[in-house]
Amino acid sequence: MKILILGADGYLGWPTMMHFAKQGHEVYGIDDYSRRLIAMQTSSEALMPNPNLEDRAKLFNEVSGLNLQCRIGDLKDFRLFESVFSEFKPDAVIHYAEQPSAPYSLKGYEEAHYTLKNNLEVTHNLLWAVIKYAPDCHIVKLGTMGEYGTPNIDIEEGWLDIEHKGRKHKFLYPRQAGSLYHTTKVLDTDLMWFYVRTFNLKVTDLMQGPVYGLSTSETDLDERLLPNFHYDDIFGTLVNRFLVQAVAGIPLTVYGKGGQIRGYLNLKDTLQCVDLATNNPAKEGELKIYNQLTETFSVNQLADKVKKVGDQMGLGVEIKPIPNPRKEAEDHYYNPTHTGLIELGLQPNYLTDDVLVSMLEQVLKYKNAIVVDKIMPRVKWNK
Amino acid sequence: MKILILGADGYLGWPTMMHFAKQGHEVYGIDDYSRRLIAMQTSSEALMPNPNLEDRAKLFNEVSGLNLQCRIGDLKDFRLFESVFSEFKPDAVIHYAEQPSAPYSLKGYEEAHYTLKNNLEVTHNLLWAVIKYAPDCHIVKLGTMGEYGTPNIDIEEGWLDIEHKGRKHKFLYPRQAGSLYHTTKVLDTDLMWFYVRTFNLKVTDLMQGPVYGLSTSETDLDERLLPNFHYDDIFGTLVNRFLVQAVAGIPLTVYGKGGQIRGYLNLKDTLQCVDLATNNPAKEGELKIYNQLTETFSVNQLADKVKKVGDQMGLGVEIKPIPNPRKEAEDHYYNPTHTGLIELGLQPNYLTDDVLVSMLEQVLKYKNAIVVDKIMPRVKWNK
Repeated sequence: MKILILGADGYLGWPTMMHFAKQGHEVYGIDDYSRRLIAMQTSSEALMPNPNLEDRAKLFNEVSGLNLQCRIGDLKDFRLFESVFSEFKPDAVIHYAEQPSAPYSLKGYEEAHYTLKNNLEVTHNLLWAVIKYAPDCHIVKLGTMGEYGTPNIDIEEGWLDIEHKGRKHKFLYPRQAGSLYHTTKVLDTDLMWFYVRTFNLKVTDLMQGPVYGLSTSETDLDERLLPNFHYDDIFGTLVNRFLVQAVAGIPLTVYGKGGQIRGYLNLKDTLQCVDLATNNPAKEGELKIYNQLTETFSVNQLADKVKKVGDQMGLGVEIKPIPNPRKEAEDHYYNPTHTGLIELGLQPNYLTDDVLVSMLEQVLKYKNAIVVDKIMPRVKWNK
Repeated sequence: MKILILGADGYLGWPTMMHFAKQGHEVYGIDDYSRRLIAMQTSSEALMPNPNLEDRAKLFNEVSGLNLQCRIGDLKDFRLFESVFSEFKPDAVIHYAEQPSAPYSLKGYEEAHYTLKNNLEVTHNLLWAVIKYAPDCHIVKLGTMGEYGTPNIDIEEGWLDIEHKGRKHKFLYPRQAGSLYHTTKVLDTDLMWFYVRTFNLKVTDLMQGPVYGLSTSETDLDERLLPNFHYDDIFGTLVNRFLVQAVAGIPLTVYGKGGQIRGYLNLKDTLQCVDLATNNPAKEGELKIYNQLTETFSVNQLADKVKKVGDQMGLGVEIKPIPNPRKEAEDHYYNPTHTGLIELGLQPNYLTDDVLVSMLEQVLKYKNAIVVDKIMPRVKWNK
């Protein structure tokens, strides 16, 4: 299969590039390095050095004997899509090319404007590239579990059958996200569903929870092939922040009450899920939606897990609640369905103590590179 | 009250300008003439001549002794908002500044891109202008009944209480629109609701049906103060198309089966509704939503009404179904609630025979200016 990957330099894009190449597919990746630029602008660089996309593609090709292709460019420019689609003719496109930081998306007007513009225009350009140049191409889009927010009813997989005053209709599950970034993914979903039903496109939308981990069959080949590891307040995830705080000997910072529950998954499982979605495409005029997570934890549960394992490793981990910079429910109902990908064959890798030990050991190797100033929240939208 | 009107040169923007000035408010209007430009580019000019915004504001000020202010500029540029908000400091903003044509929004990539970009960026800029410079300002946004599409359950006013597996949650009513233009208004609603609940803004979103009519207390003062009347396939509404076809002696073109039901209202009632919404503002952190229509008709019912009145006037009206250029249900359930504005005091002006007669008489005055080539659909998205 010819697979085009948008956002190929990202935390997920890069391991996906190597994974599909290893599976025997022809892989072409595009990135504009906007995450690297924003990381520089906000002093939020990743912990470990990551060669740029072209350099690590070359390195991977040498190590593996495979042939990743890539191109640096801005997908807001439709001419880039036109050029790539006429040259490469993809059978599937994996779309990760979004500004993914919630705090950055609300840092100020310019950052909000950029996030809305980038995320919507890239998705919209992709839809038109498929309509005009490759109507049979299957789009696999990365959404987020954050689109649903934290409703007081069970979260179904993308759709909801509603009975109202004795009549019935099936709708997209109502979405209500907690940041502008997450809201742009709600808008993406609305937009894709419009084009899918109007132009008979094939789209799979993966509602993914936060991902942790650095190890995959391919990243393990060479330390320089690791994906980026952010622990800062802009791109850092909760799990990464706790790992770095444990290693740096500073308290794990729990935002507010710590009752915020989310669905998590291992990087290895993201690759399984994206692979399963790509190999089981949506039909014409179908928007397939899966909830992509393997287990749920509250912030407090994650802090306790990291503390337990860190203490066993002699790190002496403390936990310290701080005021929540975000506007979010800190104590809420959360019950997401996530059976679709299991039915396709997903075999979960859970967040075991062993997994935490190996992540802490990986971070310990870079302990001296940790910049503690990057960790505390600089953007607040809970006034 | 200081009222800022975005899209002041439009079919609704212009009568709204005069209405609020007449009610004693200080009124400032902005427009970039994009509808006039698109009308030129697509040979879709209005039937009657309309002086430009500055000229007709001057004319109205002379006739009325009032003082409309206006400015020509592009609201996608945030600096225009910054300049206007620092100069005028509005208490309320009425936001009509969107590309409103469904066929134009799907004419091709460039038109789709422009529609998405213009509509989302103007709404987003407005939200940030209010956040940064006038957090107490009330936003009155024109949405569309088209956001809901034609679901098989009753359409409530903006919100829906859902009970699912024994638990309850109140959501935005799920939306599913029939064109990209209508979908941009779905995205606007999602975006506004995010900012309302996160930054405690005050927003009223009016889900309006198609509007007909040219006559208001102010437009009746001088023929040159009439709003634009489009009957073409790009900006023309169904009612206007039928009126012009009746006058031109060509058959009324019903798209497909003609069972498409929509909610309609008189231009006079739009002014009443926008006035009521402005004078009954949303509270901090509240998104008020009203369904703005007074009666529902199918396409066939409207054709029959125009035929009946036209025949009485000796016009000899015929009706002719043509293939539907749009992808839409032609025979569907439709039951929208619309009690909120009635409860605030709306007194409907219905589509009576007298109203149809006066509109036909108005069109008859311009019979010689009708260009029949502009009427048949040039954009098709039902393949």
